Amino acid sequence: MSTPSTVRILGIDPGLQTTGFGVLDMTGSRLQYVASGVIQTTKEEMGNLPARLKVIYDGIREIQARYQPDVASVEIVFVNVNPQATLLLGQARGCCVTALVSCGMPVAEYTALQMKQSVTGHGRAAKSQVQEMVKRLLQLPVLPRQDAADALGLAITHAHASPSMNKLAAQGVLNRKTHGMFRSGRSH
Amino acid sequence: MSTPSTVRILGIDPGLQTTGFGVLDMTGSRLQYVASGVIQTTKEEMGNLPARLKVIYDGIREIQARYQPDVASVEIVFVNVNPQATLLLGQARGCCVTALVSCGMPVAEYTALQMKQSVTGHGRAAKSQVQEMVKRLLQLPVLPRQDAADALGLAITHAHASPSMNKLAAQGVLNRKTHGMFRSGRSH
Repeated sequence: MSTPSTVRILGIDPGLQTTGFGVLDMTGSRLQYVASGVIQTTKEEMGNLPARLKVIYDGIREIQARYQPDVASVEIVFVNVNPQATLLLGQARGCCVTALVSCGMPVAEYTALQMKQSVTGHGRAAKSQVQEMVKRLLQLPVLPRQDAADALGLAITHAHASPSMNKLAAQGVLNRKTHGMFRSGRSH
Repeated sequence: MSTPSTVRILGIDPGLQTTGFGVLDMTGSRLQYVASGVIQTTKEEMGNLPARLKVIYDGIREIQARYQPDVASVEIVFVNVNPQATLLLGQARGCCVTALVSCGMPVAEYTALQMKQSVTGHGRAAKSQVQEMVKRLLQLPVLPRQDAADALGLAITHAHASPSMNKLAAQGVLNRKTHGMFRSGRSH
């Protein structure tokens, strides 16, 4: 049997103030944490919207250059209660996706519901449950901060959705695993 | 007296389906048409959102490389009656601004109301009035198409808002000129 190749996945949780990122390696069904963090922009420090989008663009290009991911997994954003905030979030997301495709990277898209479903086993999971499950799935020593956890969650979602993982799931390997984790994730 | 230097302005009217662009040269108070057109993306031909944003990104970078504008003037978009459309427009605009700042270009921002005010003299002008006034102000042989006219209108707005034009306006040169044009623009 040949050794399964490693796919490096970059998860991105877009936001104008805080864009979370998380990088992991998938080798067969094994997930290995690589890096995570946030790109921060503030109106006070960086001025107008174009300047802030430039910071996000440069940040994502830097992450791409440093970690050389094979594919990106970006959260699909939704209409907010505040329409102006929705519009700003839309522009931040447009900037993130643009930065990724500008590097020639394939971009997969998942909703927060899909991510929570994939990571915790239920779509209405609390943010803290996502953090807890990401910590467990990637065997992190500490809880990742919320934005980074969501980004890692998106990378995990893409890993779970990829054909090789689906094959494992069909063999019952992943289902059992996920089910056990799902239970732990819901324990609090 | 020294010859006034020429500033090349790129106007951008962002849209996911159709992004209008217009390039003009401002030399003192004189405006000279350079180019205009649209970047088109369709779901049918180009697939998902990342692929369409890539087309817009590449298009704007190509326009930048070809015309080497000094500054860009981009329409500030607003919340639409359709929240989903607003979110898509926001992402298209985020892509446009990102493409511009990725070239190191300064980006000025104006609302449609400011553009119409600047080009036709009143903020509630019809699209056709903007087309007509852009044609007159830039002495075009034919009416520009709507998206290109709006983009040229944004470039004109930035020209009118720039310090040298403000100085001329203070001297009464532009006011008279604009006033006459404003009247013609309203005649229908």
